[in-house]
Amino acid sequence: MAGTDRSKPSKAGGPAVILVRPQLGENIGMVARAMKNCGLGQLRLVAPRDGWPNEAAEAPASGALSILRSAKIYATLQEAVADCKRVYATTARPRGMIKQVMVPRSAAAQLRAEEAAGLKCALVFGPERTGLENEELALADVVVEVPLNPAFCSLNLAQAVLLCGYEWYQAADETPESRRETGGTPPADHGEQEAFFERLVAELDQVKFFWPENKRPGMLRNLRSLVGRLEPTQQDIRTLHGVVSALIEARRRRKGMKKG
Amino acid sequence: MAGTDRSKPSKAGGPAVILVRPQLGENIGMVARAMKNCGLGQLRLVAPRDGWPNEAAEAPASGALSILRSAKIYATLQEAVADCKRVYATTARPRGMIKQVMVPRSAAAQLRAEEAAGLKCALVFGPERTGLENEELALADVVVEVPLNPAFCSLNLAQAVLLCGYEWYQAADETPESRRETGGTPPADHGEQEAFFERLVAELDQVKFFWPENKRPGMLRNLRSLVGRLEPTQQDIRTLHGVVSALIEARRRRKGMKKG
Repeated sequence: MAGTDRSKPSKAGGPAVILVRPQLGENIGMVARAMKNCGLGQLRLVAPRDGWPNEAAEAPASGALSILRSAKIYATLQEAVADCKRVYATTARPRGMIKQVMVPRSAAAQLRAEEAAGLKCALVFGPERTGLENEELALADVVVEVPLNPAFCSLNLAQAVLLCGYEWYQAADETPESRRETGGTPPADHGEQEAFFERLVAELDQVKFFWPENKRPGMLRNLRSLVGRLEPTQQDIRTLHGVVSALIEARRRRKGMKKG
Repeated sequence: MAGTDRSKPSKAGGPAVILVRPQLGENIGMVARAMKNCGLGQLRLVAPRDGWPNEAAEAPASGALSILRSAKIYATLQEAVADCKRVYATTARPRGMIKQVMVPRSAAAQLRAEEAAGLKCALVFGPERTGLENEELALADVVVEVPLNPAFCSLNLAQAVLLCGYEWYQAADETPESRRETGGTPPADHGEQEAFFERLVAELDQVKFFWPENKRPGMLRNLRSLVGRLEPTQQDIRTLHGVVSALIEARRRRKGMKKG
């Protein structure tokens, strides 16, 4: 095991992710990838079963090798959390301990607040098959439980890291919840929409579309609402004008053929 | 490819998960597991590269084989979504289309509302390497983009399904955001806390702990606050009484030894 360097605890990259006695190198590599997906940078390994470095971790970590290379190795969880102010430990099942238990979303919001206050934090994950021992869980300030299908809640190690990291990322993400992508063309003005609508109505009037007369106001309203719901861009309005012109042209040609 | 059965669209198990041209059987199996984690039950496959059934999917799906076995197979995405009222398609990158774009959390809330209104919905995922083609994305009502580290946002197929399924599960989950686990023993009454506090103060007074006298009120307040912050259970109070008794006993013995 390599020596530990606590002289310069990195402040970058969110909470340290601590894997306790991870078994498969592949899983450590996949954890590194999931961490990078979520903008997490600090990996700590407590007594990895197959030693360290572990070649088996490298291919699954592709793209996130720098996280593997800078991983720090510890003999015990006590040592791995010694410089952390706040320790969050994940578990799949309740252990009958007196602990604060949080879902990942609330834990993530609290982590962000603590980090903003300058507190070094850690997210701890147990071994693949058994999870953390009770003595290890006792070292945590907060227990994190992921609410999933109670009949089938086992997650692999990298998935557990991904879900916690995802929530940590979301807690500070400013992507709009919902937006309308317009592919670069600006929305049409209401005047442009109205001009199209009036042209459409004029063309439809030529073939007595709005009939009987007493239904005309309701039909106009429905059609206007349908055009409005499109929230058309300027390009859309040009496309619609083109479609109307083409249909009229098609009608003229058919008429011409019948007459001819 | 097996025939499709649209006679009895299942209402159970949330939106249908549709994988378009999935390449690796292993990934299909892992998707089935992630679906079961999140309580999703309906899997649809569009033109899986290696045909169907695919033995390679079975081991990674362990525990979720029933989802694989009931998967329905389609030749095109058009056929797979023909019975769906609302189609959500995931993509890793913007395509310059005019579309509603949502994050998984908002999409999940909207999915739940649409399902509650009786609308059959689908979540569509593209092939591993390339994602959905633009023609396929054009079939969607909503595009879902997962906000992750923009410098490293590629997810494998099962991870993408897991994150969307996780949000779908959370949107109806009622796990308290934060709770205090007490391991079955009830919280102590304030009277029990006070009785312990008074005993502690009496013992400390015997050795003139609160000194000088003018500091006594502040020291009492700090100590009371420290005991209160424990939010002790009844078992905790018994433990604390035992610790105080033991420390007193230790002091008596040391005194006895010195005198003896």
